[in-house]
Amino acid sequence: MKKSLLLLGALSTLSTFGSIAFADEGMWMPQQLPQIAKQLKADGLQLDPNTLTKLTEFPMGAIVSLGGCSASFVSPQGLVITNHHCAYSSVSHNSSPEHNYLANGFLAKTLSDELPASPGFRVFVTTDVNNVSSKVISSSVAKLNGKKRVDAIEKNQKDLVAACEKEAGTRCNVASYYGGLEFYLIKQLEIRDVRLVHAPAEGVGKFGGDTDNWMWPRHTGDYSFFRAYVNKDGKPADFSKDNVPYVPKHYLRLASQALKEGDFVMVTGYPGRTNRHRLPSEIEQTFNWSYPAFVKASGEQLAIIAQATSGNEDLKLKYASAVASVNNYYKNRQGMLDSYAGSDILPRKEKQLADLKTWVNADPKRKQEYAHDIDQVEQLMAERDAQAKKDFLISYSTPRLLTVAKGMLRFSHESEKADIDRKIGYQEHDMARFRASTEGLDRSYDANVDQALALHFLTQYIAQPKDQRNANFDAALNLHDGMTETDLKTMLTNLYASSKLGTKEARVTWLDKKPADFNSSDDGFIKAAVALYDENMKREDRDNELAGKIQQTYANYMKAKIAYMNSIGQAIYPDANSTLRVTFGKVAGREQGADGTSWTAFTSLRGILAKNTGSGEFNAPTAQLTAIKEANQEALKTGNFGKYGDAKLNSVPVNFLATLDITGGNSGSAALNAKGELVGLAFDGTLDSIISDWDYNKTKSRSIQVDLRYILWEMTNVDHADNLLKELKVK
Amino acid sequence: MKKSLLLLGALSTLSTFGSIAFADEGMWMPQQLPQIAKQLKADGLQLDPNTLTKLTEFPMGAIVSLGGCSASFVSPQGLVITNHHCAYSSVSHNSSPEHNYLANGFLAKTLSDELPASPGFRVFVTTDVNNVSSKVISSSVAKLNGKKRVDAIEKNQKDLVAACEKEAGTRCNVASYYGGLEFYLIKQLEIRDVRLVHAPAEGVGKFGGDTDNWMWPRHTGDYSFFRAYVNKDGKPADFSKDNVPYVPKHYLRLASQALKEGDFVMVTGYPGRTNRHRLPSEIEQTFNWSYPAFVKASGEQLAIIAQATSGNEDLKLKYASAVASVNNYYKNRQGMLDSYAGSDILPRKEKQLADLKTWVNADPKRKQEYAHDIDQVEQLMAERDAQAKKDFLISYSTPRLLTVAKGMLRFSHESEKADIDRKIGYQEHDMARFRASTEGLDRSYDANVDQALALHFLTQYIAQPKDQRNANFDAALNLHDGMTETDLKTMLTNLYASSKLGTKEARVTWLDKKPADFNSSDDGFIKAAVALYDENMKREDRDNELAGKIQQTYANYMKAKIAYMNSIGQAIYPDANSTLRVTFGKVAGREQGADGTSWTAFTSLRGILAKNTGSGEFNAPTAQLTAIKEANQEALKTGNFGKYGDAKLNSVPVNFLATLDITGGNSGSAALNAKGELVGLAFDGTLDSIISDWDYNKTKSRSIQVDLRYILWEMTNVDHADNLLKELKVK
Repeated sequence: MKKSLLLLGALSTLSTFGSIAFADEGMWMPQQLPQIAKQLKADGLQLDPNTLTKLTEFPMGAIVSLGGCSASFVSPQGLVITNHHCAYSSVSHNSSPEHNYLANGFLAKTLSDELPASPGFRVFVTTDVNNVSSKVISSSVAKLNGKKRVDAIEKNQKDLVAACEKEAGTRCNVASYYGGLEFYLIKQLEIRDVRLVHAPAEGVGKFGGDTDNWMWPRHTGDYSFFRAYVNKDGKPADFSKDNVPYVPKHYLRLASQALKEGDFVMVTGYPGRTNRHRLPSEIEQTFNWSYPAFVKASGEQLAIIAQATSGNEDLKLKYASAVASVNNYYKNRQGMLDSYAGSDILPRKEKQLADLKTWVNADPKRKQEYAHDIDQVEQLMAERDAQAKKDFLISYSTPRLLTVAKGMLRFSHESEKADIDRKIGYQEHDMARFRASTEGLDRSYDANVDQALALHFLTQYIAQPKDQRNANFDAALNLHDGMTETDLKTMLTNLYASSKLGTKEARVTWLDKKPADFNSSDDGFIKAAVALYDENMKREDRDNELAGKIQQTYANYMKAKIAYMNSIGQAIYPDANSTLRVTFGKVAGREQGADGTSWTAFTSLRGILAKNTGSGEFNAPTAQLTAIKEANQEALKTGNFGKYGDAKLNSVPVNFLATLDITGGNSGSAALNAKGELVGLAFDGTLDSIISDWDYNKTKSRSIQVDLRYILWEMTNVDHADNLLKELKVK
Repeated sequence: MKKSLLLLGALSTLSTFGSIAFADEGMWMPQQLPQIAKQLKADGLQLDPNTLTKLTEFPMGAIVSLGGCSASFVSPQGLVITNHHCAYSSVSHNSSPEHNYLANGFLAKTLSDELPASPGFRVFVTTDVNNVSSKVISSSVAKLNGKKRVDAIEKNQKDLVAACEKEAGTRCNVASYYGGLEFYLIKQLEIRDVRLVHAPAEGVGKFGGDTDNWMWPRHTGDYSFFRAYVNKDGKPADFSKDNVPYVPKHYLRLASQALKEGDFVMVTGYPGRTNRHRLPSEIEQTFNWSYPAFVKASGEQLAIIAQATSGNEDLKLKYASAVASVNNYYKNRQGMLDSYAGSDILPRKEKQLADLKTWVNADPKRKQEYAHDIDQVEQLMAERDAQAKKDFLISYSTPRLLTVAKGMLRFSHESEKADIDRKIGYQEHDMARFRASTEGLDRSYDANVDQALALHFLTQYIAQPKDQRNANFDAALNLHDGMTETDLKTMLTNLYASSKLGTKEARVTWLDKKPADFNSSDDGFIKAAVALYDENMKREDRDNELAGKIQQTYANYMKAKIAYMNSIGQAIYPDANSTLRVTFGKVAGREQGADGTSWTAFTSLRGILAKNTGSGEFNAPTAQLTAIKEANQEALKTGNFGKYGDAKLNSVPVNFLATLDITGGNSGSAALNAKGELVGLAFDGTLDSIISDWDYNKTKSRSIQVDLRYILWEMTNVDHADNLLKELKVK
């Protein structure tokens, strides 16, 4: 309990030292909120902050995770609202050149018209969160180091998860906070039958495409609807036509009054990862190597996919989701690199570490407790980074079917053990998702495109001196010095031809096979996976030896950092780790926009007409353009834009800016007003402020939300989603 | 004097009824300024408004016209500053693939390095302006109508001009105000030896190209320098190496303090044309026919030129100036059409005319004086419009050498008469410019490109029914029903082959020939010009008959309008007509920018880095990018951007917005601060406010200026124009 108290201590300091200046920074764990209750009230929250700590009460009971995205229940029949880009793979999965739901949108007019989400798609409802730090790092674990420490931690985590998952239909995991200093056991209801209900046309849901991604002004209708289904007993179950809509304990109500600039807003969701407590060496490695390397490789991937899918609509649909994802991170990373260039982030972080060291060394007890680990941790990170550099091109060069084969082989080996002894990620409860993604591979895979990608990166890989390559990988793929691109192409062509894993039927049979079956197979990719296996296992042991040392030293560094920051009166909240968080702020434009402009808080329908080019990324549906023009004409007569219009804007709001501290994973998060009513969905941040993931920038940081009024206007006037509007109690 | 009193009456009303709301509207004649002195003072002018009426005093004595552009003297050695786009044809004229001054910029380090401006380029210094209304519309002219009226008006104008031009080196013209209600004789010193001194690289001077043209935020270094030369006696003279720099009576001083948002600014220059007093029928004709037809034809011209010059740098340079000009108007007209669509301009103008008619008819005396003419004028305009529609495709279809031939033939005919009897535009004082442009044709002409253009529009022309075509034009070019594109191409090929006018030598010989020489020529284009001549002369007579009626009725309509507006307490200033005007306002951003943004008043160097793509329209020179990065680095150390930096902006200002009422022709106009010091150059307005040419929009109208600090920063850090900086007393 000591560590938890330390945390609470930090937060109490906030109410003393913190001011409104801290209002917009912070992805708070729900249980932390009472500590900042005064501020929440001062900023305008009309709910009791204590209710926000109760995960099964309103409104938190309505907030769910989609695994990588956030979402919310918005009806008593399990209707879930999230971003269009979170539904993208499900819309793509159901699309074909004949039924191009991506291009044209999709609306199920009745429950029976709803379509299964993409394979492995889940709705996770967090039901409990418990601090298990002392159970994970028990007194016996605290004495261990290296691989033994990692194994022991993993064992404790698995035990906790196994006990937790005894309840059917639940999925549990242990999440690490403060760089491995604290651990929480998170229990979630795992709903496996999820169906696509409604998505607007891509020209609405992805309006502006990659050009507008991470940008303001923005006009993206980034919303979609799913529905969660359970069996007749109300329990999670695989897809079945006998399943019924899930009845959530709570669901969000729609805003009862118009949102305006300056209003209090909060966002509840599952932010993925921030790095605000990272070491200077990690920052240097990231911005001087990882991100530049990623940006370069991503640009190449995009070019190869574009070329290999050119003129083939079917292939384009298969790779649409991958392209969207790569583009998204590509622009994100480049944006962070741009912000980093010429900034003082690194020297400032170096100074912070130096200050911490000075503080630690100023006191013999502190020196004894922390100094060694703080010195050690950067050196250990450097070892890990060197390894990562060596592996970089291998991961890009590995054919996707080899990755599948490696996964199946590993499952087969792990399945020999008792479930509790298996490697995390390869236990029984992981199998369903792996099976679904293995089965559904064809939806997002094409052998020629994949081969073109592998060839491109293998050519770069083989050009490296032998000692910078991986001998094990070289042997498994018969790679050797001096291979030309033609040699590599021949090798790959033979490899793909020698495997049956390209067909779903063949892949599925391997899901239940034994290691011996793998070892005796003559399937090319299976053979390569087998060839890699032993050495990879040894490598994993070596990695774990390092990881154990890092975990111990890093946690102790964080402990020192928290103590130090407390000593100077600064609050600490944990970096994002895909667990449920709350952030609050207000609707606000920004003084500094593009050079020569400011940002106002809302965009409107007007901007859609202005941006529309009728093709490519700015291709609003004709029905929408017509509806907007009709609304404009109507407004000339009536003087207003109807129930979703805003008088000051003289139009219908489309997207809005807020000072909310969010990051990737928050996509789809409900934006709530002071009463906890839904006002929109967070879906993006602005490019020049995403550096906030590493270094929070209060002046620049703005989250971008799609305004609920736009969603409802569009559903009413363009998609005529009367059934859903009724379910949402709008009609 | 009555009419002039009427005008002053209108202005006196302004000081009673007018408020700050009028501050930014109005292109005032200098002599009107004392009437609005109170407002000028209230807005911050620190000069005596009376000094602004004196054309030969400071600061007006420093303001000059370039014929289509405005400019200012900025040194006692005749150094003239104007826009880069006003110098474009002169830079292009001096450019070649070997010395690409357009691409790389040009700097004369000494006087002897300065290059002649493009042929016919002039600096006009206005020395006197006199109301000659009663001399032009004398009591005897007032009784005439139709062609006789036109001829008499022209005769009076020519007499006035001839008397005025007795002074060597002067050029005079009579300008019409209030739609022919008033006339002023304008006397200008015409400086014929003008030399290019400095232009930045096109990547600076035209940064943003057509994409950014008429747009904000803007980052265009739209400035260049010329020098005016005279003979040793200080008189205008043709180019000679013995000429010396002209010593202007006055020149502008550079701003002595930093310009900031909210500051008083005024612009003095030569705005070309506004249409704020136009009739509803003129508005309808313009927006429903003329502009759409122009936009369509311009788009086609641009496409044909792009295709015909593709891959040929020499041809591209020849047509660069034409392309820039067509693009400019193309976007301008389309912008106005966009603003017009869905606006209430036409019904509002119709109501204004109806109100005027009601007011006129309410009083027997007024009815007697105005009613008939107001009814007549719209009908007469309709006749003129019908003719314009018929001529539209002919003007686009006419080969450029035919236009030259027609001009030479007309000069030849007019030269048979005494100078005073010649048609305006074909008198002795017009010959020099005509000669220069005829000689310099090759710089902007290519037979193949010209033929492609002519063919395209002839194909459209010939597709019209015979009765919509011009029989005279058909006969001159041997056009007949049913000609295919191939037929037309053959005709054109033969026509071009049958003429020697493509060579400068051949053209020049025709400048001094008699009509008989033309009549007996077998040169194809000369023959066509001769074939067209007689019918065109008859047509001109018919046009003049109509023009005379229009002049009389339109002037009377304007007289009624002025009287009516005075009666309701509204001020009247004349529409722009390329004569010297003053407008004043303040430096100001705009609440409504692109949807989701506001406009701030200044852009900065930061935006150049952000917009630069390294190619095409956003291709800043490497030296500039380096200098900006160095300035940024330096500012990180010193905390400021040096003498041209702005603390609030944290950079060097590049362009700024102001509430100044300007239009085409104001390009290059000096923007002056409250002390009359130079702070920048006006060069553009914003696309969604150029409809102000027809219907002033106070909320949206913003002029765009290049900030003097950017010009000086660039000259100092990028182009190292030390000689000019010394001349400007900066170094």
